[in-house]
Amino acid sequence: MTPTITAFERSPDRGRGLARDMRVRWALEEVGLPYKVRLVSFKAMKEPAHLALHPFGQIPTFEEGDLALFESGAIVFHIAERHAGLLPDEANARARAISWMFAALNTVEPPILERQTAVLLERDETWREQRLPMVEDRIRDRLGELSGRLGDADWLDGAFSAGDLMMVHVLLRLSGSGILDEYPNLSAYVARGEARPAYKRAFAAQLAVFTGKSPT
Amino acid sequence: MTPTITAFERSPDRGRGLARDMRVRWALEEVGLPYKVRLVSFKAMKEPAHLALHPFGQIPTFEEGDLALFESGAIVFHIAERHAGLLPDEANARARAISWMFAALNTVEPPILERQTAVLLERDETWREQRLPMVEDRIRDRLGELSGRLGDADWLDGAFSAGDLMMVHVLLRLSGSGILDEYPNLSAYVARGEARPAYKRAFAAQLAVFTGKSPT
Repeated sequence: MTPTITAFERSPDRGRGLARDMRVRWALEEVGLPYKVRLVSFKAMKEPAHLALHPFGQIPTFEEGDLALFESGAIVFHIAERHAGLLPDEANARARAISWMFAALNTVEPPILERQTAVLLERDETWREQRLPMVEDRIRDRLGELSGRLGDADWLDGAFSAGDLMMVHVLLRLSGSGILDEYPNLSAYVARGEARPAYKRAFAAQLAVFTGKSPT
Repeated sequence: MTPTITAFERSPDRGRGLARDMRVRWALEEVGLPYKVRLVSFKAMKEPAHLALHPFGQIPTFEEGDLALFESGAIVFHIAERHAGLLPDEANARARAISWMFAALNTVEPPILERQTAVLLERDETWREQRLPMVEDRIRDRLGELSGRLGDADWLDGAFSAGDLMMVHVLLRLSGSGILDEYPNLSAYVARGEARPAYKRAFAAQLAVFTGKSPT
């Protein structure tokens, strides 16, 4: 049964692949699972039909037969659990890959989201200029630790996993900030993620929503 | 094999149960699994031995034989996957419970963490008074949606699950802010969590670290 995911009807990042549907598209491409996309407007996202699927009125959602899921982390995990390619078979390695998924979403992403809020929602506030460097230093604390752990490795723990998929996408949200460039091994890590054929297919598909042209 | 978790040697919240080891203690108590605790100082948390266990130098960690895990979400999930009591057996219900775990950690907790940062780390900044209400309104957006979904139910989706455990603990981080009181069904939901015998045992155990007295 082909699953259906939801994505923004009007891409707020102009097709730069930063919205959370990208994580799900990428996971689906990694495991080779075809999917359909239903686009939703900002208005429709907060209406009862969508809130029944996603209690917080966001994207992405995932529908497959009787099952409806929300939260990109949960959806990627659901895909990874049922299809080969995103989680190791060995039990301990699998549990560690799941640790990295949670680390991406609950340890690395929160300060990055805080920066996004500071830049977008508090853009015109008097404190913006003074506060932003403090927020960015909190991101650097996390990136320094992450960089130390990654070292010279290609991926965080052995082969590419759903943990890397999440971490790479979370780090991509720093695009344009220049912060990632301060950590050459993390920049290379993100570039390795972006170079994966599955990432490229997913990126082209979300860009096509913005340009109105189908991906080639 | 009895697992060992780590917790703060000096409880920064004075034993109020807000540190993330509480989530793991609670999960272990729910499934009836005995555990050991190793206390770590703030200094030791950033030293190589602990960083080998936790790349971001935080607590909790979880060690069981050859396996070492970090991130409270991943540890609770690991426990829930291997022991009855925290995830439904039915596949779709299980996937939805996992959605709530991720929602607690990646949708509800980030604005709550932002408030914590504003109150603790930016306490003396000139913008504190003006900015805090903005941050709190972002929390209210999430709580309003969560309250709407919970309605009159006891738990978020059927029986109590790891999703409720995470959500209740994330909401507890609003203690003392008065914000939770604005949502009577969420306050009652959190109180139901705190009333669970497993929660009480876990709370007593972490409090004992602070008071220096063993839980009775």
